[in-house]
Amino acid sequence: MYLSKLFIPITKDLPAEAKIKSHQLMLRTGMIKQSSAGIYSWLPLGFKVMKKIEKIVREEQNLIGAQEMLMPTIQSSEIWKESGRYEDYGEEMLRMKDRQGREILYGPTNEELITDIFRTSIKSYKSLPQILYHIQWKFRDEIRPRFGVMRCREFFMKDAYSFDLSDEEAKNSYNKMFYSYIRTFNRLGLKAIPMAADTGPIGGDLSHEFVILAETGESQIYADKNILEIDLNQYKFNDSSLQKMRNDFSKIYAVTDEKYNEDEFNKKVKKDNQMITKGIEVGHIFYFGDKYSKPMNCSIDDKDGKKTSVKMGSYGIGVSRLVGAAIEANYNNNIMKWPKSISPFDVVIIPSISKNNKENLEKAKKIYQDLKNQNIDVLLDDVDENMSNKFKKHDLIGVPFQIIIGSKSEGNNYEFKELNSKSEILNLEKIKLKLKT
Amino acid sequence: MYLSKLFIPITKDLPAEAKIKSHQLMLRTGMIKQSSAGIYSWLPLGFKVMKKIEKIVREEQNLIGAQEMLMPTIQSSEIWKESGRYEDYGEEMLRMKDRQGREILYGPTNEELITDIFRTSIKSYKSLPQILYHIQWKFRDEIRPRFGVMRCREFFMKDAYSFDLSDEEAKNSYNKMFYSYIRTFNRLGLKAIPMAADTGPIGGDLSHEFVILAETGESQIYADKNILEIDLNQYKFNDSSLQKMRNDFSKIYAVTDEKYNEDEFNKKVKKDNQMITKGIEVGHIFYFGDKYSKPMNCSIDDKDGKKTSVKMGSYGIGVSRLVGAAIEANYNNNIMKWPKSISPFDVVIIPSISKNNKENLEKAKKIYQDLKNQNIDVLLDDVDENMSNKFKKHDLIGVPFQIIIGSKSEGNNYEFKELNSKSEILNLEKIKLKLKT
Repeated sequence: MYLSKLFIPITKDLPAEAKIKSHQLMLRTGMIKQSSAGIYSWLPLGFKVMKKIEKIVREEQNLIGAQEMLMPTIQSSEIWKESGRYEDYGEEMLRMKDRQGREILYGPTNEELITDIFRTSIKSYKSLPQILYHIQWKFRDEIRPRFGVMRCREFFMKDAYSFDLSDEEAKNSYNKMFYSYIRTFNRLGLKAIPMAADTGPIGGDLSHEFVILAETGESQIYADKNILEIDLNQYKFNDSSLQKMRNDFSKIYAVTDEKYNEDEFNKKVKKDNQMITKGIEVGHIFYFGDKYSKPMNCSIDDKDGKKTSVKMGSYGIGVSRLVGAAIEANYNNNIMKWPKSISPFDVVIIPSISKNNKENLEKAKKIYQDLKNQNIDVLLDDVDENMSNKFKKHDLIGVPFQIIIGSKSEGNNYEFKELNSKSEILNLEKIKLKLKT
Repeated sequence: MYLSKLFIPITKDLPAEAKIKSHQLMLRTGMIKQSSAGIYSWLPLGFKVMKKIEKIVREEQNLIGAQEMLMPTIQSSEIWKESGRYEDYGEEMLRMKDRQGREILYGPTNEELITDIFRTSIKSYKSLPQILYHIQWKFRDEIRPRFGVMRCREFFMKDAYSFDLSDEEAKNSYNKMFYSYIRTFNRLGLKAIPMAADTGPIGGDLSHEFVILAETGESQIYADKNILEIDLNQYKFNDSSLQKMRNDFSKIYAVTDEKYNEDEFNKKVKKDNQMITKGIEVGHIFYFGDKYSKPMNCSIDDKDGKKTSVKMGSYGIGVSRLVGAAIEANYNNNIMKWPKSISPFDVVIIPSISKNNKENLEKAKKIYQDLKNQNIDVLLDDVDENMSNKFKKHDLIGVPFQIIIGSKSEGNNYEFKELNSKSEILNLEKIKLKLKT
């Protein structure tokens, strides 16, 4: 993509309500545009990042045998009355009536709807376990939407639901998802810590939230550094190994301020290993047994032909929120550097262009085509602007690698720079190698 | 995927309202499940087909330089008041109030919102032309939703919007999209005819609808067969060649019953070439100049610094509708055969399994792994059921190729069948070749 063609409306005057850095950066680089309070359009640059995150989330869900489907955004109120949450949910639920006067709502979550689908579809224990997921827009009518995509009203979320015959089997599904989440956040280039959590309005008796480290995060975190060092490769994908994995994580101290106790922290964690920082919740998993299946009559025939309420868990990842969270975690000292796996482009070519000399631009176009042919997703900054402005701009756009075609480039050797590092002079073959590894 | 693990709840008792064959088939094979009138969940089999269609639509939009973005489902009423459509749209628009009492709505289309985004983003003719698109859920509160996904309330649609300085340039954008649509439907394995159309509530002075041939379609079609023979490869991707392409299509007679005139048909089309059939509208493109940009003050500085309203077109493809349309076009004599490009699986392995003999199943599992390793997306029917029932089931699921492991298979030679054709005995290497070409 040539930058001059990219629809990337850069905002210079930030609105007063853009208080946190991800919100500021996303407006500044034209990643999003607000359409109403807490509702955003995703412009091409932001959309690309979100799609890359979505793809990784999807791949990791598929890897543990979860099956993708898609539930609608609009739901009937009836199933929410069955579960008892219609009244409870309060004003955060966006309610409306259709032209026939029927009560409908914009789904804030999908426990009821998936239970409704499951109860009419699966009757026998033989078809269990099942994990179903979808990646769909949700709406929660926050009283004070703020922080850009971090606390908006219409948001993009992956939510999965597991179905098992017994509590014990259900915990195996829970552990698979736990494993999948750690893998997912690792692939996104983010450091995530699982923390035992309260279950809140979803209910249930087992729950973890996944918090990524970012100095500007909303939650205070107290943890033992060692929790970041657990290597997932030591576990196999079977029930006992995954249970061991969860135990290993649970043994290491990591809490948010709600559960923090100074004496306990000092007792359990050596001074050198104490990590006090902030974090952002990006995932939450729940096991709640028959909380929904029982009132909604979602039952399964067990081996003896006896009907039993199916045991369920639900598992969420905030996909749109992760775009903001990744910025909070990686935007420092006025330089944004996207993790490679979710960067909107693999590399940007920045030629020095002057009115009388288009030679660098021509060179850049050739390199562009060469990289394109190698399936490298490249941005070419063909805008007629001085280099100092260009560098400032690309410090914000955040593509992690730059090929700079200016005074330091000679023949087939070009200045190659990784953001936050020193540049080096390399030929194109070496540059390609760097980009591909 | 093993069929026993696939979440594919097969419905045997069809509801009375399932009157057309796509609706019946989608319920029967567990592709969708209705959650309320005209609102469906997409279960894994249906979801896979829809995703494949979405991917082809996306690739073809990108190919003509359209840029993907994503607008939210919920819009503010204000922009609709600016354009003057808020009152006009009537009861099909799903309107609601948020907790602050603000009027909001579920977007039935996006001309207003994209115009709002564009007017604050692009100011100069230098940034034109631009084509932006998104693939997003829409809601139209149909008074009588019916025919499954063919006329539902919440539906998945690709809508694109073009922005140009002059009518002439805008027509070049229109022609690009025309070209893209023909390519898209070809790749989906569907025969689509573009027809000059009325512009309806979108407005404007140039419009085509794209209708695919299906005997059960809603519109009567009268056309010259030659319109299906136009080879797109003869055109280059430049303005003059694409204009010639559109002229070539326009010269050939093709109308729906609204514009049909018997005398004209007989005069313009030789008896042998007369095609009288039915069709389903799956795409619609509009050029409407400044119909939205003028009332909404979306203007551009031209070369002389003079402000002029940007010239716009809009271009829709019904992605969820296409799933149903593809069934209407390909489900005949109780056999559904998916076009290869959008089939939920590339091939299905059907072993004959009996209680005392699992040898065929073991063979099938080996072949399954072998094909998986070659990136062939394969379904293995590991269900313990007699072959006659299996064949009936797979006639509905519609995977176009079958590897049958039963009495006719010997050693490394297996029965290979393309739906609606005779089977042949082939070794695995030859089968792979067939699947890959």
